[in-house]
Amino acid sequence: MPKIVDHDERRREVLSAARRVIVRDGIDAATTRAIAKEAGYSNGVLAHYFADKDEILLSALRQSHQRIRDRLTRKVEGATGLAALRELLLDNLPLDAERTQESRLEVSFWSRSLASERLAEVQRTEADELRAAVRDLLAQARAAGELRSTDDNLDDLTEHLLALVDGLSLHLLLYPGRLRRVDVERLMLQALDRL
Amino acid sequence: MPKIVDHDERRREVLSAARRVIVRDGIDAATTRAIAKEAGYSNGVLAHYFADKDEILLSALRQSHQRIRDRLTRKVEGATGLAALRELLLDNLPLDAERTQESRLEVSFWSRSLASERLAEVQRTEADELRAAVRDLLAQARAAGELRSTDDNLDDLTEHLLALVDGLSLHLLLYPGRLRRVDVERLMLQALDRL
Repeated sequence: MPKIVDHDERRREVLSAARRVIVRDGIDAATTRAIAKEAGYSNGVLAHYFADKDEILLSALRQSHQRIRDRLTRKVEGATGLAALRELLLDNLPLDAERTQESRLEVSFWSRSLASERLAEVQRTEADELRAAVRDLLAQARAAGELRSTDDNLDDLTEHLLALVDGLSLHLLLYPGRLRRVDVERLMLQALDRL
Repeated sequence: MPKIVDHDERRREVLSAARRVIVRDGIDAATTRAIAKEAGYSNGVLAHYFADKDEILLSALRQSHQRIRDRLTRKVEGATGLAALRELLLDNLPLDAERTQESRLEVSFWSRSLASERLAEVQRTEADELRAAVRDLLAQARAAGELRSTDDNLDDLTEHLLALVDGLSLHLLLYPGRLRRVDVERLMLQALDRL
């Protein structure tokens, strides 16, 4: 009996290869040819699964976000309000090898999104989900009396925390001699304590 | 009398062209060929002034930072402590057309720096200068009794503010439908008020 090709499995393999190439060599270097080589497939096989390079990149970004969500669901399990928010924000920082790869992938997409409306749109949709999650948890925390101030605007607090997550992630990746993981974790927890 | 070539002027022209290409088309598109075309010179002329593409990109980044410093010196003029810090931080946000171009240039360099040690090194040196300036102004502000808390660590406050500057700049560029310039300005001023 001929071996049956598992299409989902192949797509996942190609996307994992794309993630490895982007993180290792930069997003400029992630050509379809380089991704095919990394995955061990021909360009023709890739073309069968993805329309073009952008579709591979976008799928790789979405796959990464799905992994983050799945992991977070396991971590947060049952927590609400401030405790859940703490898990969520720390989980978005490059505090171990896996999350460092994820953050490098994010940073790679930022600059590319500025030059491509198609990428920017996906980036926005994905970011809106994270934003809504943070906002909901802040509202829970306020309802539970966990926030010090009762007059701070929750939208502003949300934006402040999310800007901090991306800024700290970026600085930890770019300036490893200036910031260590423990510094970034402390800075994030301080920001939460001030709420 | 033959026209004498002003070499500094030519270098500046090439760098301005490089900035325009990066900001308009993305850093991937900023090949030496594209930059030469934008500047109205041949590839040969470019090769006369710059060793390679990286040297053009790095010089463009340094030129942009020098423009920011010059502008800031004029703006801050005589201000110290918290007032000067406010000017410095706001000046680093994309709150008008000129600074939007500057921020787009920065974001373009972030991802590239993750894949190139040479770019990363320049990025670090430039960032250290900004960090030292923010730290000095915070120390001035504390000495003048302008900070509420006397026990917050100035290094941590510095990192918090700088992460916020880059995170807010990024989000304003990526999510123009979610954040407006006035929101970002307010968020930055709120962060300063909390000090």
